Amino acid sequence: MHASKSFHFFAGDFTTHADFSELLQGADIVFHLISTTLPNTSVDNTTADVHGNLLSTLRLLEQMKKKGISRIVFPSSGGTVYGEAQYLPIDERHPTEPIVPYGATKLAIEKYLAIFRHAGQLDPICLRISNPYGPGFRPESPQGVIGAFLNKSLNNQPIDLWGAGDVQRDYLYIDDLIDAMIAAASYQGPHFLFNISTGIGTSLLEIIALVEQATGHPLVVHRHSSRSFDVKSNVLCNARAQQELGWSPKLSLTQGIERTLQWLKSARKYSDSQAPNT
Amino acid sequence: MHASKSFHFFAGDFTTHADFSELLQGADIVFHLISTTLPNTSVDNTTADVHGNLLSTLRLLEQMKKKGISRIVFPSSGGTVYGEAQYLPIDERHPTEPIVPYGATKLAIEKYLAIFRHAGQLDPICLRISNPYGPGFRPESPQGVIGAFLNKSLNNQPIDLWGAGDVQRDYLYIDDLIDAMIAAASYQGPHFLFNISTGIGTSLLEIIALVEQATGHPLVVHRHSSRSFDVKSNVLCNARAQQELGWSPKLSLTQGIERTLQWLKSARKYSDSQAPNT
Repeated sequence: MHASKSFHFFAGDFTTHADFSELLQGADIVFHLISTTLPNTSVDNTTADVHGNLLSTLRLLEQMKKKGISRIVFPSSGGTVYGEAQYLPIDERHPTEPIVPYGATKLAIEKYLAIFRHAGQLDPICLRISNPYGPGFRPESPQGVIGAFLNKSLNNQPIDLWGAGDVQRDYLYIDDLIDAMIAAASYQGPHFLFNISTGIGTSLLEIIALVEQATGHPLVVHRHSSRSFDVKSNVLCNARAQQELGWSPKLSLTQGIERTLQWLKSARKYSDSQAPNT
Repeated sequence: MHASKSFHFFAGDFTTHADFSELLQGADIVFHLISTTLPNTSVDNTTADVHGNLLSTLRLLEQMKKKGISRIVFPSSGGTVYGEAQYLPIDERHPTEPIVPYGATKLAIEKYLAIFRHAGQLDPICLRISNPYGPGFRPESPQGVIGAFLNKSLNNQPIDLWGAGDVQRDYLYIDDLIDAMIAAASYQGPHFLFNISTGIGTSLLEIIALVEQATGHPLVVHRHSSRSFDVKSNVLCNARAQQELGWSPKLSLTQGIERTLQWLKSARKYSDSQAPNT
């Protein structure tokens, strides 16, 4: 994590009055990647979500304005700000009607960024990212089905499936996402909001089949009834990002899952070799 | 204010952890009319706006859910949630791109209400109200040009005008607004959001002329350059409210200004008669 000499690590609690002033010293661009909640954890504690994400972000933005740092790349949530799809693929003009607090908070941050942009105080870019996956994820985190399913498969554990498995998502490989963030950092055109996605919908049943194909093992599926905060389909049109950012995703889902699996295997091997002998 | 026997007054600070539990005891419907900021005061302190309005409202909503009170009538801001008009009159499907934090906070509250509605936890109605005016306003408050201009005129003081005076607003008489809130309280149809407005745009220069006509005195106008947080035109289509709530505004602007002036004169007389002899 600290491998690069040009990388400085500051530890702190984003949700308290962290000293963003030190953090921002000498910075030209801010990539704001912190989130204190996930879509499901935001459901039962909306005030914590607002405190941890919206208010903390507003404090960060105030510090940026004070220091004259104008460019911030904000990863919004392409999976939750739109709500139920009124048409597919969803473009940036689609209505924003989140059905989960996580999406409402991400949307509120977008709106404040737009206000500061309108007032000439900041030069933000919002990326409405679809479902990212790939090397570097936390194997024990419930976030991200591809990583979770791969990890369960290697552990010979059953997976949990809510609903019939026909829920469609738009899975984006992490390296493609990083390329989009870098392209966004130097973008100078007229737009402010971009979907960052593949534009391809894949069902959970298809993901299960792809994971089984990559690992060579069938998955044991524990079925549950569907959750009220999962939208049925989320596939995002990426035409604006292609045209304006000169960006497009490079990796197929089959390739991406294969690479994620290889990374996970080596990460587990490393973790095993580091484990104390018991 | 305490004239009616069926009116119970509870004093408390909405922005701290007020005991909404006592307040809500025995209530069937909540009209949530508190706001701790105005559009202009929200500009320089976005975190206070979020604390005072969004977080406090979320706490109120949590208490409502606990007590099983589902109907809340929330006055949103038809003047700020839409931002610059992309077409006129603005209907409820118009994009919501506020240019002032006050509007972003109102919009965020709308989004949380929609989420709780989707989850079956609350049965809210949001009213996107245009510019209300009429008897009962605070003469010294900067909010509401009609009241402010009438009061300045009676005081023989100059008025402040930002911009050329061509800024259009949709002025709604207070009694018409109250009728809409009462109609909304018992509404059981499919909609959740309503513009509450006249659908008629009136410029500031026209307001000045109407005030001069009502008082019989010319106003002295101090001109300033326009403010970045004022949208140029805000006129709201009220067709949905007319159709669904069976409501329509009754009073013309000329009549409304005349009634406001009469009320202001008698309020000032009362206030003078209460003043200590000095």
